[in-house]
Amino acid sequence: MHPMEEISSSDAFHAYRPEVVVFVLSVDGKGRPNGMVAAWNMKCSDEPPLLAVAAEKNTNTHRLIEESNEFVIAVPSKALEKDILYFGSVSGENVDKIKKSKIKTTPSKHIKTPLLADAALNFECRLRSSADAGECTIFIGIVLASHCDPQRKVLFYKGAKDGKRVFEEI
Amino acid sequence: MHPMEEISSSDAFHAYRPEVVVFVLSVDGKGRPNGMVAAWNMKCSDEPPLLAVAAEKNTNTHRLIEESNEFVIAVPSKALEKDILYFGSVSGENVDKIKKSKIKTTPSKHIKTPLLADAALNFECRLRSSADAGECTIFIGIVLASHCDPQRKVLFYKGAKDGKRVFEEI
Repeated sequence: MHPMEEISSSDAFHAYRPEVVVFVLSVDGKGRPNGMVAAWNMKCSDEPPLLAVAAEKNTNTHRLIEESNEFVIAVPSKALEKDILYFGSVSGENVDKIKKSKIKTTPSKHIKTPLLADAALNFECRLRSSADAGECTIFIGIVLASHCDPQRKVLFYKGAKDGKRVFEEI
Repeated sequence: MHPMEEISSSDAFHAYRPEVVVFVLSVDGKGRPNGMVAAWNMKCSDEPPLLAVAAEKNTNTHRLIEESNEFVIAVPSKALEKDILYFGSVSGENVDKIKKSKIKTTPSKHIKTPLLADAALNFECRLRSSADAGECTIFIGIVLASHCDPQRKVLFYKGAKDGKRVFEEI
């Protein structure tokens, strides 16, 4: 048995990986989509199908979800690796990240928020409830429809190595 | 661009991986520990450090956490692969899974629930709040202390292949 060492929560959170860094998209009052990426997300019920995502309170996407009560969770494929980095580096407050990145969207079936055409999976969600979580709000959405591209594999994040973010396909 | 196909949420949830299948431990009124494994877990705040885990309402561990207001999230290493399968296959209602599995524990610093000695990471959590999520409750815990074994790597779950569960080290 090796000894357990106490470390900072920050260091422990970094080691607590892999994560699936998903796109979280929503729309404003005029139906204009924008979004962010979020490493903190999980399934949380099979029946009804529910997804949870933790969004920082000061983000534009947090505001969009609170206003529209809907969001899309788009699980990235390798084709979206560059877009993950872009969406993670810019605030949507003053930038239309979808237009700027030229990321491809496709209409969803039940809500205004679009899907990402090059994602491995897309989940259309209606906000069901939310829970306070410190600097974040956990948004819990009921999945109205799920879409996949069977030719795409899920891309997940393993952490940084030598200052570079390492993603891998499942 | 490939076409997006609508699929069942159940199929989409299976494809939405990898997951870190963690041990969730807690104690009963007499301080006796027990636990389960949970694939649905995430970090949800850096400051304060918060972790969220979705626990099915009908589980013994759900009851323990509601009664004791504390839990440990133990992130497994390769050494615990067999125990993940065991903890996932048996209810703690009538079985002391810790004793039965001979899994090694070590005292935590601030709470009654023990750590797992062979985990890669252990988080001592005090229940901060909970949120309803269909068949599950999301328990949100504040991290009181984090522990790591620097010689252990995190084991994560990639899904089933040819009927066998595939785990891999990060």
